[in-house]
Amino acid sequence: MRATIMYGPGDVRVESVPDPRLVEPTDAIIRVTHASICGSDLWPYRGLDDRPFGPNGIPMGHEAIGVVEAVGPEVRTVKPGDTVLMPFAYSDGTCVFCHEGLPTACVHVGFFGSPEVGGAQAEAIRTPFADGTLFPLRAEVDETLMPSLLTLTDVMATGHHAAVTAKVGPGKTAAVVGDGAVGLCGVVAAKRLGAERIILLGGHPDRIALAKEFGATDIVSDRGEAAVERVRELTGGYGAHSVLECVGTEEAMRTAILIARPGGAVGRVGVPHYEAIPASDPAFYGNLTIGGGPAPARAYFAELLPDVLEGRIQPGRVFDLTLPLDRAAEGYRAMDERRAIKVLVKP
Amino acid sequence: MRATIMYGPGDVRVESVPDPRLVEPTDAIIRVTHASICGSDLWPYRGLDDRPFGPNGIPMGHEAIGVVEAVGPEVRTVKPGDTVLMPFAYSDGTCVFCHEGLPTACVHVGFFGSPEVGGAQAEAIRTPFADGTLFPLRAEVDETLMPSLLTLTDVMATGHHAAVTAKVGPGKTAAVVGDGAVGLCGVVAAKRLGAERIILLGGHPDRIALAKEFGATDIVSDRGEAAVERVRELTGGYGAHSVLECVGTEEAMRTAILIARPGGAVGRVGVPHYEAIPASDPAFYGNLTIGGGPAPARAYFAELLPDVLEGRIQPGRVFDLTLPLDRAAEGYRAMDERRAIKVLVKP
Repeated sequence: MRATIMYGPGDVRVESVPDPRLVEPTDAIIRVTHASICGSDLWPYRGLDDRPFGPNGIPMGHEAIGVVEAVGPEVRTVKPGDTVLMPFAYSDGTCVFCHEGLPTACVHVGFFGSPEVGGAQAEAIRTPFADGTLFPLRAEVDETLMPSLLTLTDVMATGHHAAVTAKVGPGKTAAVVGDGAVGLCGVVAAKRLGAERIILLGGHPDRIALAKEFGATDIVSDRGEAAVERVRELTGGYGAHSVLECVGTEEAMRTAILIARPGGAVGRVGVPHYEAIPASDPAFYGNLTIGGGPAPARAYFAELLPDVLEGRIQPGRVFDLTLPLDRAAEGYRAMDERRAIKVLVKP
Repeated sequence: MRATIMYGPGDVRVESVPDPRLVEPTDAIIRVTHASICGSDLWPYRGLDDRPFGPNGIPMGHEAIGVVEAVGPEVRTVKPGDTVLMPFAYSDGTCVFCHEGLPTACVHVGFFGSPEVGGAQAEAIRTPFADGTLFPLRAEVDETLMPSLLTLTDVMATGHHAAVTAKVGPGKTAAVVGDGAVGLCGVVAAKRLGAERIILLGGHPDRIALAKEFGATDIVSDRGEAAVERVRELTGGYGAHSVLECVGTEEAMRTAILIARPGGAVGRVGVPHYEAIPASDPAFYGNLTIGGGPAPARAYFAELLPDVLEGRIQPGRVFDLTLPLDRAAEGYRAMDERRAIKVLVKP
């Protein structure tokens, strides 16, 4: 089959690789119909990750919708022919953390887009713990909904997680740090959870336009101290109740803490490419709550799916470029150069 | 009047100073009947604080029960003769943060034990914003309850805040880092909020004995990696749902994060004498929530007071030494040398 492999910074190739096959009795093989390139794929693409590429490169992609092609003998809840959502992490569905709604802390957790299980930017992928991981769509789904459904496998679930851990609620002011696909989904999530005011910190005109359509009420395009000042001005000097940190850089996290109102919460979902969080002021003296982490996407499907199926949210609008699998490398370039917000890849 | 002044590390003197007087129309003067020495007073005593002593030293003490002696013309809720609790911070009682239950973020917040307002280890103290700050006791209170009531002005409120921000609840496992007075009050608070299991990390035999009486079910006297290992063993390998960080050192905070269960919460109330919180693993990958800060003691009085008055909790047992004001310096030495858990000072 064809699959996307990254061999080093800026070096993405779509190549012929062996077809995936069932290894464990709990595995499923799915034929990928929709995959995407994630902002987090840009970290290694830009040479900003510690992860070694190795001589065989890294199979890329961790977000997919597909059709089940084969299942191991112990798989019970999906069967060949089912259309399924595949979240970015696999999980057994039976451990204490899965039961507590935190499958990204599953005792068997693993992440797609790795040499062990392969990547989703490919014609097919092996899914460990298929029962715990895959979420079958029970009805025929219109193709136009597929982009929004695909976001549930990562970016929309992640934006939602940022909003939940930032304690967004009715009447509150939310600030979203970052205008990437996750930040934009954070706007969707904040709106959905009732935020009265949603301040997006971002500078890219196309993304700002989409953020406004998603429900952002204010835009702050300054950076650093100026951004902090501007958010303070917009919030009567106090800051935002809920801050969604959707970038993962030291500057973004620092900004997130500085624009939070005393007693407020920061939900951080950008994979941290920084060592530490400033401990003292304002995090401690402002009684801030700092939460977040890898979104338990699988656990959020049931809550978010109806809103997508019934058209109340359209996070799939973050996809502004669709490419066939063989042109995946173009997608990386477009996202790296910020010509595209998010790229949908169709095998 | 007599008051306790710290002139430098290890240099505490009780001296004659001018009587406090009403400055603002919202002030009250209270005659202190019960004050205490706080673990946080040991930071400057040990030379571990950045705060300059200045030529006139720092008036010490921020926890008091007293009798109102005089009030300014705008004070409405307390009157001369009232016995009042004075929390460690003053607050106006009217701003948005006071209304939200976070008086330690009051727009007029200030802390006792400073040259501006004086200290509570004294015969009398000026209390700014008396209506917002002081809490009058409505009935005659038995002297035997006074130590426990006094803890509400700081350590018990702070232990409670650690438990609340660590999300202690029925059936959960709580771990308390630190066997000082705040840690011990954290045990009281965790028990009160329904924790099924309470692990105290501490090594001092007297404190361990009291912690057990307060409800600690397990004691871990190891430190560093060994302590982390031991808590993991006690919790099926997962860690504690709720971790109360009651020390404020880098090692304590690091331990707190490492013993938290994925999806768990750390409530930190030890004044941070560390620069930063490790950002990545396990804080991010374990989806930990990190909260806490200066306890909104004034806002907790109403909730905690009935439990003290009706004898359900006895946090006053942390006082194991009572001294007259003129011997306050002895109290500092006893706490510094860990011969006393907490010292009650009677002017």
